[in-house]
Amino acid sequence: MNFDISLYLVTDRPLSKGRSHEYIVERAVKGGVTMVQLREKDISTREFYELALSLKKALEGTNVPLIINDRLDIALAVDADGLHIGQSDMPYEVARRLLGKDKIIGLSVETIEQAREANELDVDYIGLSPVFDTNTKSDINTPLGLAGIREIAGFTKHQTVAIGGINTSNTADIIANGADGIAVVSAIVSHDDPEAASAELSAIINKQKQSTCS
Amino acid sequence: MNFDISLYLVTDRPLSKGRSHEYIVERAVKGGVTMVQLREKDISTREFYELALSLKKALEGTNVPLIINDRLDIALAVDADGLHIGQSDMPYEVARRLLGKDKIIGLSVETIEQAREANELDVDYIGLSPVFDTNTKSDINTPLGLAGIREIAGFTKHQTVAIGGINTSNTADIIANGADGIAVVSAIVSHDDPEAASAELSAIINKQKQSTCS
Repeated sequence: MNFDISLYLVTDRPLSKGRSHEYIVERAVKGGVTMVQLREKDISTREFYELALSLKKALEGTNVPLIINDRLDIALAVDADGLHIGQSDMPYEVARRLLGKDKIIGLSVETIEQAREANELDVDYIGLSPVFDTNTKSDINTPLGLAGIREIAGFTKHQTVAIGGINTSNTADIIANGADGIAVVSAIVSHDDPEAASAELSAIINKQKQSTCS
Repeated sequence: MNFDISLYLVTDRPLSKGRSHEYIVERAVKGGVTMVQLREKDISTREFYELALSLKKALEGTNVPLIINDRLDIALAVDADGLHIGQSDMPYEVARRLLGKDKIIGLSVETIEQAREANELDVDYIGLSPVFDTNTKSDINTPLGLAGIREIAGFTKHQTVAIGGINTSNTADIIANGADGIAVVSAIVSHDDPEAASAELSAIINKQKQSTCS
């Protein structure tokens, strides 16, 4: 499945200031978000399933893929476009076997070594996590930093999306160091105007990609 | 798939006194347990998957089905014999569509009304939960009591297994009131001798079933 990983929104209800995922995602897509990941923790399976169904409906007709974090059962149940797994989630090979070759599967890598190991897998993209310090994930390793992004981008065969502490002030640097895209949480979901926030990030990415190519 | 629901062990690591699921399950099966459910909360998907794989291996050749609680992804990943869902888990119809008709699917019902609704579904069994007060589940409703068991057994078209606060002192009453089996947690997993505990429960069930039939 073709996808554009340049501006990847990861949901977070506690950071969304009481606004629904649909509210934020519809505006973010208008602003230029190219992929959406539904990430939920501490929620019942039924609630996760219902949120995924709603979000799928909100994305219908947009060409923006819906990716489910961790939960293959939810991805299958709503026929999502893909699954994002971390190092403590389902093994990649099992996820691929159950989802089939047409779905997008992304894998988080937290170290250079894990990025090298991912070169042995036919994942569709790798998430470089975290680039910077962040408050939105509690289980993080030492940040990879821009140097880590640059090193991984130099050898990986996969598309890369950087995540962790990314906002308008550092987006251009991340793209300049070789990431194919950025994934953001609070920079969009906590912003008073998710559409404007997305549009601003999108413009920075596009500008930097043009300058890198020229 | 044929199964015998008469003595159904539900795992619980915090109650297992540091002993592994394999340790307990191997002994419990020797003692007469007829089904095993792997129930895990607050665990990574990878750990859940690995526990399920180990337990599947421990049950190989025993004819005792391995049922996974809540997580359809884990059930699929290890090709378990079935899935047990509660009222806040995946909707039954979705689970059946993804698991296929050959797998066992059980559904917890917590009220008479839910038991009536379950008559519209082709679930393989219903769990009557809880029969008595219990400390092993935190999200419980008012206990159904023996009267609730008797009422549900009178109208349900499904096999029934009672759960919640069951031990050697009340097992006979539960079977006498019409349940096809009992599900236990601490009565086996916290017992110093899981094989002896299972054998004692099994003997009570068999004796009561014979007396009911004669």
